[in-house]
Amino acid sequence: MPSVPASSSETAAPAWRVVGTRPVRPDGVDKVTGRALYGADLSLPGMLTGRVLRSPLAHARIKKIDTSAARALPGVRAVVTSADLPRAADRIEDLGEGAINLRYLSDNLLAGEKVLYHGHAIAAVAATSASIAEQALALIRVDYEPLAPVMTVTEALKPDAPLLLADLHTDRMGQRDAAPSNVASHLRHERGKLEEGFRKAALIIDRRFRTETVHQGYIEPQAATAQVQADGQVTIWSSTQGIFAVRSQVAEVLGLPVSQIKVVPTEIGGGFGGKISVYLEPLAVLLSRHAGFLPVRLVMSRTEVLTSTGPTSGSDIRIRIGADAEGRLTAMQAELYYEAGAYPGSPVGAAAVVSFAPYACDTMRVDGYDVVVNRPRASAYRAPGGTNVAFAVESVIDELAESLDLDPIEMRLINAVREGDRRPDNLPLSKIGYVECLQALRQSDHYRTPLTGRHRGRGVACGYWGNWGGQSSATAVLNSDGSVGFNVASTDIGGSRASLAMQLAESLGIDYSQVKPRIGDTDSVSYNDVTGGSRTTFATGWAAYELGQKLSAELRQRLALLWEVPVDTVTRQGDGFAAGEKRVGFAEAARLACEDAPLMVSTTVHPKGYGAAFSVQCADVEVDPDTGKVTVLRYTIVQDAGKAVHPSYVEGQMQGGVAQGIGWALNEEYVYNEKGELLNGSLLDYRMPTACDLPMIDTVIVEVPNPGHPYGVRGVGEVNIIPPAGTLANAIHRATGVRLTALPMSPPRVLAALWDKSGYSPFA
Amino acid sequence: MPSVPASSSETAAPAWRVVGTRPVRPDGVDKVTGRALYGADLSLPGMLTGRVLRSPLAHARIKKIDTSAARALPGVRAVVTSADLPRAADRIEDLGEGAINLRYLSDNLLAGEKVLYHGHAIAAVAATSASIAEQALALIRVDYEPLAPVMTVTEALKPDAPLLLADLHTDRMGQRDAAPSNVASHLRHERGKLEEGFRKAALIIDRRFRTETVHQGYIEPQAATAQVQADGQVTIWSSTQGIFAVRSQVAEVLGLPVSQIKVVPTEIGGGFGGKISVYLEPLAVLLSRHAGFLPVRLVMSRTEVLTSTGPTSGSDIRIRIGADAEGRLTAMQAELYYEAGAYPGSPVGAAAVVSFAPYACDTMRVDGYDVVVNRPRASAYRAPGGTNVAFAVESVIDELAESLDLDPIEMRLINAVREGDRRPDNLPLSKIGYVECLQALRQSDHYRTPLTGRHRGRGVACGYWGNWGGQSSATAVLNSDGSVGFNVASTDIGGSRASLAMQLAESLGIDYSQVKPRIGDTDSVSYNDVTGGSRTTFATGWAAYELGQKLSAELRQRLALLWEVPVDTVTRQGDGFAAGEKRVGFAEAARLACEDAPLMVSTTVHPKGYGAAFSVQCADVEVDPDTGKVTVLRYTIVQDAGKAVHPSYVEGQMQGGVAQGIGWALNEEYVYNEKGELLNGSLLDYRMPTACDLPMIDTVIVEVPNPGHPYGVRGVGEVNIIPPAGTLANAIHRATGVRLTALPMSPPRVLAALWDKSGYSPFA
Repeated sequence: MPSVPASSSETAAPAWRVVGTRPVRPDGVDKVTGRALYGADLSLPGMLTGRVLRSPLAHARIKKIDTSAARALPGVRAVVTSADLPRAADRIEDLGEGAINLRYLSDNLLAGEKVLYHGHAIAAVAATSASIAEQALALIRVDYEPLAPVMTVTEALKPDAPLLLADLHTDRMGQRDAAPSNVASHLRHERGKLEEGFRKAALIIDRRFRTETVHQGYIEPQAATAQVQADGQVTIWSSTQGIFAVRSQVAEVLGLPVSQIKVVPTEIGGGFGGKISVYLEPLAVLLSRHAGFLPVRLVMSRTEVLTSTGPTSGSDIRIRIGADAEGRLTAMQAELYYEAGAYPGSPVGAAAVVSFAPYACDTMRVDGYDVVVNRPRASAYRAPGGTNVAFAVESVIDELAESLDLDPIEMRLINAVREGDRRPDNLPLSKIGYVECLQALRQSDHYRTPLTGRHRGRGVACGYWGNWGGQSSATAVLNSDGSVGFNVASTDIGGSRASLAMQLAESLGIDYSQVKPRIGDTDSVSYNDVTGGSRTTFATGWAAYELGQKLSAELRQRLALLWEVPVDTVTRQGDGFAAGEKRVGFAEAARLACEDAPLMVSTTVHPKGYGAAFSVQCADVEVDPDTGKVTVLRYTIVQDAGKAVHPSYVEGQMQGGVAQGIGWALNEEYVYNEKGELLNGSLLDYRMPTACDLPMIDTVIVEVPNPGHPYGVRGVGEVNIIPPAGTLANAIHRATGVRLTALPMSPPRVLAALWDKSGYSPFA
Repeated sequence: MPSVPASSSETAAPAWRVVGTRPVRPDGVDKVTGRALYGADLSLPGMLTGRVLRSPLAHARIKKIDTSAARALPGVRAVVTSADLPRAADRIEDLGEGAINLRYLSDNLLAGEKVLYHGHAIAAVAATSASIAEQALALIRVDYEPLAPVMTVTEALKPDAPLLLADLHTDRMGQRDAAPSNVASHLRHERGKLEEGFRKAALIIDRRFRTETVHQGYIEPQAATAQVQADGQVTIWSSTQGIFAVRSQVAEVLGLPVSQIKVVPTEIGGGFGGKISVYLEPLAVLLSRHAGFLPVRLVMSRTEVLTSTGPTSGSDIRIRIGADAEGRLTAMQAELYYEAGAYPGSPVGAAAVVSFAPYACDTMRVDGYDVVVNRPRASAYRAPGGTNVAFAVESVIDELAESLDLDPIEMRLINAVREGDRRPDNLPLSKIGYVECLQALRQSDHYRTPLTGRHRGRGVACGYWGNWGGQSSATAVLNSDGSVGFNVASTDIGGSRASLAMQLAESLGIDYSQVKPRIGDTDSVSYNDVTGGSRTTFATGWAAYELGQKLSAELRQRLALLWEVPVDTVTRQGDGFAAGEKRVGFAEAARLACEDAPLMVSTTVHPKGYGAAFSVQCADVEVDPDTGKVTVLRYTIVQDAGKAVHPSYVEGQMQGGVAQGIGWALNEEYVYNEKGELLNGSLLDYRMPTACDLPMIDTVIVEVPNPGHPYGVRGVGEVNIIPPAGTLANAIHRATGVRLTALPMSPPRVLAALWDKSGYSPFA
């Protein structure tokens, strides 16, 4: 796909040598040949197999757990329950993408007084084989007092709803210290006088929306291995987005100092936010400690992944927007009810910021509610909370545009935020490329090509994501052959080994092939925040840039000493260095400089200038009127990358986010029965799109450099998943005249809506 | 054991908080509980087992190798011979302890045209099981043309001796470019006029000595695993003293860039110089490459270790020393013929320096010859070359002292080198503690307690070792709880995790328990020379010191920013920092300083001021006149440690060196038959001393600080093995009146000497 230069009045971007090219990724061969070692591949001498007993009930009080028969089974080396966990602190821990109360985290690891969802962990065993471990699970007797499950926001908010937790006291009006409830918290962002704004409107649309629980759908199930030594030192091998986040969570819930824990990352088969919170790691540590310090490996089944690891929130959303006759927005209001699952912590906070962020409007109010229900505890999923609210907002904007007879891009251009405008939480936006994205879509072949045919429609939607900076550290080692070892502790999920190595190569002025990136463990590289929030290529990339500058400076100093010239006379020249008549290539400079002492540099950064990301998307769909099936005919995503370090991987992120968004929009959902049992806990029944379900997703990279980064980089990992549901809802509406207000827009729901519109009833 | 303060006129040493204490080693629990992972413990998915075919002949031409039957065996995945090795460069590579011609290294890995010793590697296979691999070895047909073996220096130097290599041209007189020979090289150190010196002597002793080949005797056999990726990236897991030495050797013999190779250290079960040169690693890489990129693990049997890895040289030595009537030495001459094994590279160069180093004498000449024989290629062994020559020199000095009726310590004090005196190679000595060691022994309880009883005698000998600095790198990471992650790439053989962490803790002013050392791989830490030459606690310790200084400086800067005070007002106070009224402990300072960005520092050093080491030893023995068995009754070692960072480990090094020296002196030797077959290739037949064979070895640490190190450290690992053979020979002489001139002084040899002296002949 060609990159479309930003149409802003920028002076020409600097000509980079490496940044912007498309080299082969360092970990590619490993992965395509099956050699990369994932969590489940780990094998240690004497290793035991762990298994987890999970609740068959969605809501119950635990009266007693009897593990004696399991413990007595030959081959069983350890059985642990919540009684083996220390009392965790009642304190909020920020994990980078989302925060969690440590007491809830602990209760989620091994249920204490209550089980709160089908699949909630109750006990864990370690045994000499998997079959013995499974036999042992069957021997654990749990005495339950069943309670009525609360499965949706609607149920949870009823005055007589059963209560999940004893310590929540927020009411529907956001009042804290109210009577016990299922509402964990309320937030409000507000500016202007809301009803005055609505009074200025020529047209007000007020709609309610519903989205279902969906899962991140990473291909690799959670896997963790731990070995505790007799002196208390702990080593954990984990498939995680953040080894330091694993370290801090394990330290907190087990009451250990972080310096006693080393976390080693395995390769990771996807995470999308779902591999930040820990599930297995503390259990593996406890089991290893109880099992005579043997290593213990725990690997989830696919069903465990779906029942017991972080899906993202289902939600009930009300959106009310007013516009004047020219399409200018006069007032915007959102009420967001997000299902947190069993413990507080839905992404409603991020959703509240995302909601109206693309729209410049002086009058808005956003209310957000975090509501607990008897589903697995929600965890981050790619732009957490954004897709739900954008589905609702973009549907209403589309309805306004259509009603006012405005082109949907034009409608958004009229109201588009620009640098200096404020988000719903009133933080100002720095330099952004939103208008450029809208213009790029308008100029695209896709948008300029008319869509014809029956049951077909074209939809447009947009999305905003704030991105994140966070803390990163890295080291670089100069080898005497001119190659550079480059150590980072940012998990590589989407190609960051390449995107980071490229920035180091660029900064050093050497070939990409000469930089050898590797992912370190918590002991080998200083603190790094999680790979999440679209921060890695931005922030760890900044560290890479700084390493290059430091290494160059050190090289110049050493050459100056060798050549006996002042350091400021040593300059970069071509691929090497020069001073007066003297001249060496980079490799020769490395050889000379390392002759007497090795050369290593390290850096730590915490950049604050992460630029916001925008994406505008366009879909053509065809709806089968007989089955309700929606076929995506053509899809184009436009996204501002700031500067695409490795355009292929940026395109990959864009396509991946859209693919996940299409699944969320059209098919994916957790299906529960009235008892709160998950009915579709496998990838046969939980329907993620495959390559057969999707068209080629066309990408247009817009580059409005982020002034807060040396190469202009913005995070590109998340914003792409925000618009797809709205895009497809708008396309389905244009194809059918039916506006769907609930996700997923799966064949039964589409068909029901079509029948509803036509008045047809198959049962009449 | 109490440390004896140096009796020099030094001002009092600084009072360190951590340096000089005896904390628990970080790797101790791992090792005593069997959890530490050694080379043979490694397990990777799909891993194949490798085995090596070794020559049954000591000297032969290889006419043909037929591997076809082995290749056809089901389960065999790769077979390699020297035909799979690229032609290695004819170039000398310095490995830190010893240097090697890469062409010879390559020929030693897999024999090319000739096999040169019993056990020489010929081919390697990788198969799906060990039994298949062994079957495959039996199917390889090698067509040999047997040649006469050359087993000793004496045989090798005969004019009509069979020649091992075609490219050696040094004659017995040291003439280069002579006719082809088995002499690889000759060196000479000389000062003064030799015969004039001897003419000044009142007494001249001229003796010839012989020492046998002995092995380092590390408990863990060599083990290496390699995995080659389809893109050529190589990962090697190795039990080695130097991961960077493995990297460079593999790169050179396989023609790969170093940046394509990552070497990961396993725990190491002893090395003593024998785990620097590679044996298995290049074979594992070749096999993995040929076996479809599956990992291949090779582990030696004990017999392979003895037949095919680096023993140290046997030697023929002539020592001629003259002294005046007062015991002052007038001239010293040495002729050293060291057996290099199959390829050039005996430690005769180091031996030539060690020879007369403890003696201040203006007139000396040392000739050294490196001679090839049909034994395994010699490699470094703890103070390489030193024990052989010191056995000879100290025997002659003892004979002079006895003849002149001088106390052996007095004899050495009269002639002792002091700061500024020159070694045999004319390099001047910096500040040393030799005289202090002699005085400490003289004042010791052992030396002041008379030895009584029949067949008993007391011997004294001394030794010098130059030590080494080399290059070291390290990084330190400050955790927000005040603990410090500390990464080094110096293999920890003898407790250096502790001795290095202590120096970092001292430099930072924090508790030892707060420093968490770990051993990195070649990608994670910059270049480090091998753990050898007694350099690690000295040089990597220097890096630890520098890291502490850098981290403190960085902390002070960050606190100055936070407190808004000039950085020079922030000072260390107690265990923390202060500025004016403000005051924080170290952990709180860490928390504050890391709040906004992580803190990591790195350093690389190449210190040149490694101080020389001296040891003086004293043994009491009892000789059984009926069996010739020598019992060591009491043994004391005095050694100058400069500053003993961790006195327990210094004592451990001293005791370990003496134990090995006693084995070398009394029992150990390679026994070959006339065909050149090793007859005692197991630890049952190759007799190393056990705890039952040894008395408690008493240690006296002398501390004459090395001015070339911030804590005054000198290397302590090697010098202790130099005096034992001389010490015991002198003790046996005093017990029996018999002066043994050949090692080992095993019961048959002692008995033969006793019979010889008494004129008794059992066969008469």
